[in-house]
Amino acid sequence: MFKLYEFSTSGNCYKLRLAMSFLEINFSRIEIDITKGESRTKDFLKINPNGRVPVLKTPEKSYLPESNAALWYLTSDSDLMPEDKFEQAKVLQWMFFEQYSHEPFIATSRYWIHILNKEDQYKSELLEKSPKGYAALDVMEQHLEDNDFFVGNKFSAADIALYAYTHVANEGGFDLSKYTAINKWLSRIENVRNYITISE
Amino acid sequence: MFKLYEFSTSGNCYKLRLAMSFLEINFSRIEIDITKGESRTKDFLKINPNGRVPVLKTPEKSYLPESNAALWYLTSDSDLMPEDKFEQAKVLQWMFFEQYSHEPFIATSRYWIHILNKEDQYKSELLEKSPKGYAALDVMEQHLEDNDFFVGNKFSAADIALYAYTHVANEGGFDLSKYTAINKWLSRIENVRNYITISE
Repeated sequence: MFKLYEFSTSGNCYKLRLAMSFLEINFSRIEIDITKGESRTKDFLKINPNGRVPVLKTPEKSYLPESNAALWYLTSDSDLMPEDKFEQAKVLQWMFFEQYSHEPFIATSRYWIHILNKEDQYKSELLEKSPKGYAALDVMEQHLEDNDFFVGNKFSAADIALYAYTHVANEGGFDLSKYTAINKWLSRIENVRNYITISE
Repeated sequence: MFKLYEFSTSGNCYKLRLAMSFLEINFSRIEIDITKGESRTKDFLKINPNGRVPVLKTPEKSYLPESNAALWYLTSDSDLMPEDKFEQAKVLQWMFFEQYSHEPFIATSRYWIHILNKEDQYKSELLEKSPKGYAALDVMEQHLEDNDFFVGNKFSAADIALYAYTHVANEGGFDLSKYTAINKWLSRIENVRNYITISE
């Protein structure tokens, strides 16, 4: 059975729970409280020397850090991955967009505001993150104005990667109300069979 | 033929030239000067709405942004990608590590110091980036103390992704002299057949 080392309120960890729910894969969960330094202990660094969650432990007992690498591993032979090689690369394109242009601004802002409850302490950092997070949302909105999903007009792992932090962007101080296409896309995902919320 | 839209001194763009050289793939090059805003023009945003280079144009005339997605596309059916699915996911793990934990610190510092020549202006930002860049180098060093390459003890796309900015980390103010294992690994890559430098 798969085992997920996770900080359960993290969107990066939620990606893997969501994918395994869609794919009806059984897994166990181990909570690693990153606010208490539990991802930086000597024992955890043996599992992931980079000191981050999630880490997916496979049934063969191998460890796989990096949310989108684990998401690719879980989905690569499933309906959540296109068959065409160029479309597979497009899935990866959006996953790299998510980790480089979206997560460092939206997820980090949410971490300071919603998880640590330290909005005042991080005021200047939040101001710097804000336009970059909105820039990522603008890129998504533009794409979704012409497409129901991110790749091949079909629900895929790319949507899961981007859904994780976009649907809780408000918890990072981002106002999603003007993003009509994003809101429709969020609903579309929430209606897929076996969808679970981030708190499940 | 492939066409590469690139800012040629960028390590992200070099990844793709290096991979195509190793794989003996012919391609043409179009220089996009990001210091002059050429990746944010109306025409370029049609190619990549996220306004970044590289973008790889395939012989079928499709555009693929995100260096590591394009690197995956070029290498996925080649000797530069392991055959085993879990090892393929490990290649992606290191690519995501590169984009999240390495590039934003080492490449960005190099951009301010080496490309823009504005070390004084970015002094406080550079101080903040420095420990995070060294943390990434520490993770690499630890891995390379026990392994010749990043995945499966064989040269792969993961090594190309990490080589691009590591071998010029000194241009970002990072002292590589104490990283014995990294230095040996850099030499190992530079001895692979069809290796080209970043200025070729």
